[in-house]
Amino acid sequence: MAAQAGEDWIAAALKPRSIAIIGASDNPEKIGGRPIKYMLRHQYRGVIYPINPGRREVQGIRAWPSLDALPSTPDLAVVCVPGLAALEAVAACARMGVKLCIVISSGFGETGPAGLATQQEMVSVAKDAGMRLVGPNSQGLASFDSNALATFATLLGEVPPRDGPVAIVSQSGAMSMVPYALLRNQGIGVRYSFATGNEADLTVSDFALAAARDPEVKLILLYLEDLLDPATLAQAAQCAMERGIPMLALKAGVSDRGKAAALTHTGAVATEDKVLDAWFRQNGILRVADMRSLVQGARLLLRAPRINGRRLVILSNSGAACVMGADAAERHGLEVPPFPPAVQAAIAGSLPSFASAQNPVDLTAALLTNNHLFGDVLPKLDASCCDALFISLPMSGLGYDARQFAQDSARFQEATGIPVVLACPLEQTRRIFDEAGLVAFEHDEDAMAALGQLARIRTLQHEAGRLWRGIARPHHPRKGPLPATRFLSEADSLELLESAGVPTAPWRLCKNEDDIRQAMRTLDLPVAVKACSAEIPHKSEYGLVRLGIGDIEEACAIGAEMRATTQTLGKSCEGIIVASMVRGRRELVIGARWDEKFGSVLLIGDGGKYIEAMPDAVTLVQPFDLAHTLDRLRELRIAPLYKETRGDPPLPVEALAKLAVQVGAWVQAQGGRVMSVDINPLMALAHGGLAAADALVEININADNVPAGET
Amino acid sequence: MAAQAGEDWIAAALKPRSIAIIGASDNPEKIGGRPIKYMLRHQYRGVIYPINPGRREVQGIRAWPSLDALPSTPDLAVVCVPGLAALEAVAACARMGVKLCIVISSGFGETGPAGLATQQEMVSVAKDAGMRLVGPNSQGLASFDSNALATFATLLGEVPPRDGPVAIVSQSGAMSMVPYALLRNQGIGVRYSFATGNEADLTVSDFALAAARDPEVKLILLYLEDLLDPATLAQAAQCAMERGIPMLALKAGVSDRGKAAALTHTGAVATEDKVLDAWFRQNGILRVADMRSLVQGARLLLRAPRINGRRLVILSNSGAACVMGADAAERHGLEVPPFPPAVQAAIAGSLPSFASAQNPVDLTAALLTNNHLFGDVLPKLDASCCDALFISLPMSGLGYDARQFAQDSARFQEATGIPVVLACPLEQTRRIFDEAGLVAFEHDEDAMAALGQLARIRTLQHEAGRLWRGIARPHHPRKGPLPATRFLSEADSLELLESAGVPTAPWRLCKNEDDIRQAMRTLDLPVAVKACSAEIPHKSEYGLVRLGIGDIEEACAIGAEMRATTQTLGKSCEGIIVASMVRGRRELVIGARWDEKFGSVLLIGDGGKYIEAMPDAVTLVQPFDLAHTLDRLRELRIAPLYKETRGDPPLPVEALAKLAVQVGAWVQAQGGRVMSVDINPLMALAHGGLAAADALVEININADNVPAGET
Repeated sequence: MAAQAGEDWIAAALKPRSIAIIGASDNPEKIGGRPIKYMLRHQYRGVIYPINPGRREVQGIRAWPSLDALPSTPDLAVVCVPGLAALEAVAACARMGVKLCIVISSGFGETGPAGLATQQEMVSVAKDAGMRLVGPNSQGLASFDSNALATFATLLGEVPPRDGPVAIVSQSGAMSMVPYALLRNQGIGVRYSFATGNEADLTVSDFALAAARDPEVKLILLYLEDLLDPATLAQAAQCAMERGIPMLALKAGVSDRGKAAALTHTGAVATEDKVLDAWFRQNGILRVADMRSLVQGARLLLRAPRINGRRLVILSNSGAACVMGADAAERHGLEVPPFPPAVQAAIAGSLPSFASAQNPVDLTAALLTNNHLFGDVLPKLDASCCDALFISLPMSGLGYDARQFAQDSARFQEATGIPVVLACPLEQTRRIFDEAGLVAFEHDEDAMAALGQLARIRTLQHEAGRLWRGIARPHHPRKGPLPATRFLSEADSLELLESAGVPTAPWRLCKNEDDIRQAMRTLDLPVAVKACSAEIPHKSEYGLVRLGIGDIEEACAIGAEMRATTQTLGKSCEGIIVASMVRGRRELVIGARWDEKFGSVLLIGDGGKYIEAMPDAVTLVQPFDLAHTLDRLRELRIAPLYKETRGDPPLPVEALAKLAVQVGAWVQAQGGRVMSVDINPLMALAHGGLAAADALVEININADNVPAGET
Repeated sequence: MAAQAGEDWIAAALKPRSIAIIGASDNPEKIGGRPIKYMLRHQYRGVIYPINPGRREVQGIRAWPSLDALPSTPDLAVVCVPGLAALEAVAACARMGVKLCIVISSGFGETGPAGLATQQEMVSVAKDAGMRLVGPNSQGLASFDSNALATFATLLGEVPPRDGPVAIVSQSGAMSMVPYALLRNQGIGVRYSFATGNEADLTVSDFALAAARDPEVKLILLYLEDLLDPATLAQAAQCAMERGIPMLALKAGVSDRGKAAALTHTGAVATEDKVLDAWFRQNGILRVADMRSLVQGARLLLRAPRINGRRLVILSNSGAACVMGADAAERHGLEVPPFPPAVQAAIAGSLPSFASAQNPVDLTAALLTNNHLFGDVLPKLDASCCDALFISLPMSGLGYDARQFAQDSARFQEATGIPVVLACPLEQTRRIFDEAGLVAFEHDEDAMAALGQLARIRTLQHEAGRLWRGIARPHHPRKGPLPATRFLSEADSLELLESAGVPTAPWRLCKNEDDIRQAMRTLDLPVAVKACSAEIPHKSEYGLVRLGIGDIEEACAIGAEMRATTQTLGKSCEGIIVASMVRGRRELVIGARWDEKFGSVLLIGDGGKYIEAMPDAVTLVQPFDLAHTLDRLRELRIAPLYKETRGDPPLPVEALAKLAVQVGAWVQAQGGRVMSVDINPLMALAHGGLAAADALVEININADNVPAGET
């Protein structure tokens, strides 16, 4: 849900001054006992109110028999009692004016309809009182600046906390703490670890926004299985971008088996993954595939959040490391451009004559004999040729003055603002660089992956910022009645899309034989002859599409045949479409569909009958513009054809992009009345330009209006 | 070079009883001093002979003024003196009957022609005496079973050795020690770390073979920039496969910038990377992209070298970890199949009712309350449904009985032989599993990558074994004169290939207008009309290909035009080819070329004019058979079309594979006389079958004979 005018819940989540535990346990290992154990151990600065009618004391703290016995309203309440008792507890919190209530108890929406009903009642009760809800089935919220540890996570007992600049927000309890542990193992401090559970009210999006607004948070990591509130997460991403902090998201359930497992896990029917992928990207959020990728770049992202481009300079005392570094850079989306001649000449002056002053720079054994080599070479690099510096030292130790290297590197980083990353198998060398303020990895591959993330985030956030500034706010989902859909006939589809500006191959809808004759005389031959029926969306399966017809009599005969076939099939037939077969270079596709959450979603790419068997398409969500579309289209497999290739003229990619933007905007403007649009094939014409040779539009008959043009 | 009858050098490399250091230094940090320092520090069990005319003692050991002053012939000599003194030293070793000589000194083949000349003389001198040579420009050989540390590597001073089951063989000095350090950091023992330098004589292949034959070596890791002796490495790979030990290879220089850097680094002009890729694969060697991938699976590969298939069972106490595990499995080539009903029912009996007994198995919070859950569930799994078990424990610590889990898992692994891998962010849990004999990783992604490697190696080695057993030994390169090549005309190319069994679209070579008329009357229309000239291999660029001609007069006119055009271009013209335009479903391609090292190399895939712009092809090296070819073809992007798709009949993949095998064998049999074959397009006919619609053959006019069929 969009953040409500009252944002008191945020302070209650991030810095509660008092916390009531309902169902508090004297046993520190029980669900109602763990939060208390943790807060005592780590000296939570606020007041803990254990609610337990059966005890005077819980873990040494005064216990209270009920919520209303408390001397004041707690900022935060944590509900640890099961079933209907939990519902009562939520109601009690609401009555008392608690701003934020975490329901740790499970057995609600995640179990089935009965549990879901109770869960919805909790939401209702809370809403009426202006109270926000976390969970149910949440592992809890942990805020490490004040050590408000309203969580029963086991890992918290094993991995001691330290406040720092990272916020973790997760739909899964386990996945709110695994990144915590992995970051703490790297010596990185974490401020927030939030697990949102069933997301009956507050979702990952809300906490991401709250974290993005905390000036001391410098890195936000998300774990999601489904995205319930994209609008708020977009706000959060925008805030993060404006503050220059990275946001990374791990969303699972990509593979078929993963999706099946997710269904079992959360019951969520996942939005199509490609759509979420596009959404993350277009909103400047870096999506990662696994937990290691979520955390492994953190040290770099925290130390050097800014990078100005993708040009990497590689330095090493091993030629082999130079070769592998160049390979790795390519894998991670970084360039290793040759030096400008002036830079090359300057560097050559510092290297022995047998060394080549190219990028990657092989310092050779010269590094062993001249410990000031870094100090000689680095000042010759600057922002004119370098956005990041990668140093690989597979050979270090005795004889190498790592402290001097680190000093010289740190001076370079300080002077230029260019991030420097080291890879070295020796722990002591890494420690020296780390102490000098430089990020060091054991593996070259990890260093390169981190640099790749840094560069990618910059690109994503830059583009997202451009889209946010340039285009109207994205669609907010409108909870309408469930859609009931039907397909339009090809003729109606074509007409409708023509009204939206889609160019079509010349066609006629022929109601009788005279119409066919007239069409054959008027249109350029040869033609396609197709039965037109709203009840037969996939005509070719029934022999109701015939191509390359040049003869009038043949066309008439085919028309009659097709009418007969539709009758045999028991389907309606509006007529026979006769359409010029435009000479095309290639078949393309533009598809659009209406998504309740995301509005109009576009698919653009290589078309024809094999689009499922051999897909080559991009997915775009709103909002996007021409420039963004062109960028995305450049990633297609057919991209080389946008230039003249083997004597063939270029594919009209600009026209394709423009038309896609147009169709996307049109579907968006229909606000749900148009459920899907399928323009396949969209012919790229031999002389340039595009023409739809077929079209299929699906409309929502439960929507408010019917779209203009529908007959 | 192929291993010679005398293999004394192997014992000298692996277990030298005595080592002479020529240019021995009293300074332990100099190149001539380090090997002595290391061998003293780690108590080399043999005799060290420092050769230094200027000293009585070197680092406390008696020094000798020259090689011939020694009381006996050392097994191994290490040359640390520069330039011509190195050549003299090599000669002295050869005279004395030393079996193996390592030249550490640099400044030879890697610097240019003068250095190369000296290097070649070293080889010559050694060869005459039956002595083998390592280097020059080699970092050295380290054998850790006897601590014969004939190396100046810096890392050896920083990372203490421990003998173990791993052999590292590398063309690069740095990359012989980086994996050493990374493995030692993981607590893994390394037996051999060999750096081959310039490979003037012995190469990585020779040492790989020696290592594969050492019964105590259980894992072989290679680093290469170029492969000089594939035949010997194939032998090594076969030996490794027969012994059931994995061989992994890291070969750098894949990207354009990487290749440029490699050129600078070693001067080697790399064989086309796709060819090497195919060669590794078909020889059962797992190729990896980076150093982390080379070493990170080692613990698993050493502990559980056998896996019987790709079916993974995933167990976790986190539903999210289950979802992510399924995604990761797919990324790493593993399956996560549903359980057979009996297994599912059995497991369901052990889990609470709200848990789903599917694969991946979410043990839920039940694991916290029932520490014997592993003991209950694991015995229900066996080889009938499981090839590997992955356990993800994102939640562990207090309350979880890790020792019990580890015991139960170990018992399962012991009883079934099925490898078990744990991922857990807690170090203490990992240690407990490690002590119980199970492999544990911090990151789920690393665990999955290791399992993926294990499964992939099994598949590769199994297939390589099948190929080795079924097919004759691969081609040994024949160092002939440098090739001088020329293209045959299309007519000659087609005829030659027809004699090799390639089906062609019906065609006629027309010398005059009458021939054209005759052809037009005989062949199925329409036809393609093409100028035939050995001097114009790419005809369409000059308008010398016209398609879809159905009219006799038009054909004659075109023929005359084309003759005129070739005359204008100043090129010869053998005639006009008139060829039926066969109705094809799709254009495919078969290409072959002759490689000096690998023999006939095949390229098979999607054809047409865009094969460079949008490649979709596989590369195969000899030897391969039909079954292997079909396997490889199934990886193409067009693979879905091998089944009936959208009403279209299947592409004739079996015919394609058969023809490719045939063409490959034919080119192989030509032994270098045919340099390349280009059949594009190879039409997949509408009714099944294949027909070449164009062909281009390139022959080597310096070869012994001209191929049969050439006019």
